[in-house]
Amino acid sequence: MTDPVDLTARLIRCPSVTPAEGGALVLLQELLTEAGFTCYRVDRNGTSNLYARWGDKGHPRTFGFNGHTDVVPVGDEAAWTADPFGAEIRDGVMYGRGATDMKSGVAAFAAAAVDFVRDTPPDGAIVLAITGDEEGDATDGTIALLDWMDAEAEAMTVCLVGEPTCPSQMGEMMKIGRRGSLSAWFTVTGRQGHSAYPHRALNPMPAMARLMDRLASHTLDEGTDHFDASTLAVVTIDTGNPATNVIPAQTRATVNIRFNDLHSGASLSDWLREEAAAVDTAFGTTTEIRIKVSGESFLTPPGALSDIIGRAVEAETGVVPELSTSGGTSDARFVKTHCPVVEFGLVGKTMHQVDECVPVEQIDQLKAIYTRILRDWFAD
Amino acid sequence: MTDPVDLTARLIRCPSVTPAEGGALVLLQELLTEAGFTCYRVDRNGTSNLYARWGDKGHPRTFGFNGHTDVVPVGDEAAWTADPFGAEIRDGVMYGRGATDMKSGVAAFAAAAVDFVRDTPPDGAIVLAITGDEEGDATDGTIALLDWMDAEAEAMTVCLVGEPTCPSQMGEMMKIGRRGSLSAWFTVTGRQGHSAYPHRALNPMPAMARLMDRLASHTLDEGTDHFDASTLAVVTIDTGNPATNVIPAQTRATVNIRFNDLHSGASLSDWLREEAAAVDTAFGTTTEIRIKVSGESFLTPPGALSDIIGRAVEAETGVVPELSTSGGTSDARFVKTHCPVVEFGLVGKTMHQVDECVPVEQIDQLKAIYTRILRDWFAD
Repeated sequence: MTDPVDLTARLIRCPSVTPAEGGALVLLQELLTEAGFTCYRVDRNGTSNLYARWGDKGHPRTFGFNGHTDVVPVGDEAAWTADPFGAEIRDGVMYGRGATDMKSGVAAFAAAAVDFVRDTPPDGAIVLAITGDEEGDATDGTIALLDWMDAEAEAMTVCLVGEPTCPSQMGEMMKIGRRGSLSAWFTVTGRQGHSAYPHRALNPMPAMARLMDRLASHTLDEGTDHFDASTLAVVTIDTGNPATNVIPAQTRATVNIRFNDLHSGASLSDWLREEAAAVDTAFGTTTEIRIKVSGESFLTPPGALSDIIGRAVEAETGVVPELSTSGGTSDARFVKTHCPVVEFGLVGKTMHQVDECVPVEQIDQLKAIYTRILRDWFAD
Repeated sequence: MTDPVDLTARLIRCPSVTPAEGGALVLLQELLTEAGFTCYRVDRNGTSNLYARWGDKGHPRTFGFNGHTDVVPVGDEAAWTADPFGAEIRDGVMYGRGATDMKSGVAAFAAAAVDFVRDTPPDGAIVLAITGDEEGDATDGTIALLDWMDAEAEAMTVCLVGEPTCPSQMGEMMKIGRRGSLSAWFTVTGRQGHSAYPHRALNPMPAMARLMDRLASHTLDEGTDHFDASTLAVVTIDTGNPATNVIPAQTRATVNIRFNDLHSGASLSDWLREEAAAVDTAFGTTTEIRIKVSGESFLTPPGALSDIIGRAVEAETGVVPELSTSGGTSDARFVKTHCPVVEFGLVGKTMHQVDECVPVEQIDQLKAIYTRILRDWFAD
């Protein structure tokens, strides 16, 4: 039996902050190769990715898992009560960056797959597509893997993404779609001057404050049947002016929007440009905007895959999972163009936070759920 | 006759960049001692200052001059067309660091005082309080001189500060007060989280944007009879969050206020704290404020001293000077607690700039104005 808790701990000890591989994919490749998987490192532009297949290439019954081993930065390290790369277990809870997002998920599906093919070899194939670039730009991660699969005639019939999906209780939610994500970088330019003579300068700061207040205060929508309301987060404003007697010429800000199918990257880009133009008109400033749509919203309608996942989750946890499209973006947005994709994983409450952590029993439970999904899907 | 142009040149050749004495005060002390002034070096914490008195200590009719011999750094020396410490005269204009701010002013009042006490010894006393720390922190300059005067029972009945006060034409402006200056550093704290789940985080950015918009939009006042309107400049907002998928825990901003006598450092501090508290209540954030009042506003109401100065300026230049309170801060803010203080000096256009310079005829004109002020004040 492959211990998913030990495997999670070993992965957490790999400092794989995007884009560093940190040893995490090497570790998985060793484990999977030993278990009879054929492994390929699919690296592109400095990003490391791992593709592992058990069974025949292109088998019409190929179950895919997708996940990532890269993690977001530690943040304020002094605020952590445990080593972010230590995987310390305290009162049954394991601490570390990636504990929930999503080294435990990768460990659970890798352990489930290894044990499943050894104990009950299926009539079909199992694919693990694991990327080192989900938390970054994601341009050379799952996209690179899918490009490579196309080129190599590798395929998945369905795909389960192991991202954390449960808001607070294990088993309560799977994701059948995701909101889109857009980031916008604003540069507001005025004219430098002396703080004592503001009428001779054109301070870009009030315009920036007004613009960010307007954007953050706006209600994008109230949500739809399958989607939560869209959200906008101002993530940073930066000026870098150290002198209290100087009015700066320029200031910058970044905004991130998570949007449902009432919007598109294009419609939101138009709105942002209109808001900036309105503020420029009021203040006399010049605002430049750079926009990146990292994913449009998408939906995998409820069906066979979500049914099997739902039954497995209920059998192992007693909880019937909700079919949701809430939360952020994930690599499922790329997989969706390849095959039906659903996401199910742990409770994500502490992801990206200081003292990110996971109860170890939930890692075991997740492995059991993934194992049951494999059994039921191949038996179907 | 003491030549103020030659004296200015000799002072410019002393490289007295704050806090260096550079020989400037030594030179003045020699000149003044020879002219019958009693001189004291009032040095404190590495800063050099000179106190010179002609006449009896504590005489009820003591006219004071205040000025400084320290200068700001040269800046980009390669951009100068003359030696910054050479006092070169080209087409009737003398070049050098301190040419306007304010070695010429010191030279003019020193030359005026020396000749005046020799030619027409007044029934009273003349004090010259000259500091080597006006361009720096100013904590050990004029403040040190005033502290020492208190301890020694030295006093001035009125004081004329020789700083450059004319925006572009000789004689057009004297300063009868100055606005105060306050800087405030804000830190707004929320709770870090994932941009996709803003309801689980507490983003400090919208609170910061609202707070800065409120502060920048607020009209502090419309000005008074003697003062321009108070101004507030948001000089920087900084967060330093490079990740678009992370909501930061904290953001910082700095605000600078130049205020007239409708406000005080204390009243503005109260207002800033109330605004921050209102935003914290609305957003659930916690805002900390650090405030530094670098000078309260002050006013020497129009009266005998400004009348005498105005008549002298008009007689020598044909221009009636405006009684202004515009501009930055000066050592007059310290002298104000000791006696009525007015500022009058040269055109300040090139101060702190490359190729700082002064038409030599204006130095002679300034000496003539100061001489006439002394004559009229003692005759009054």
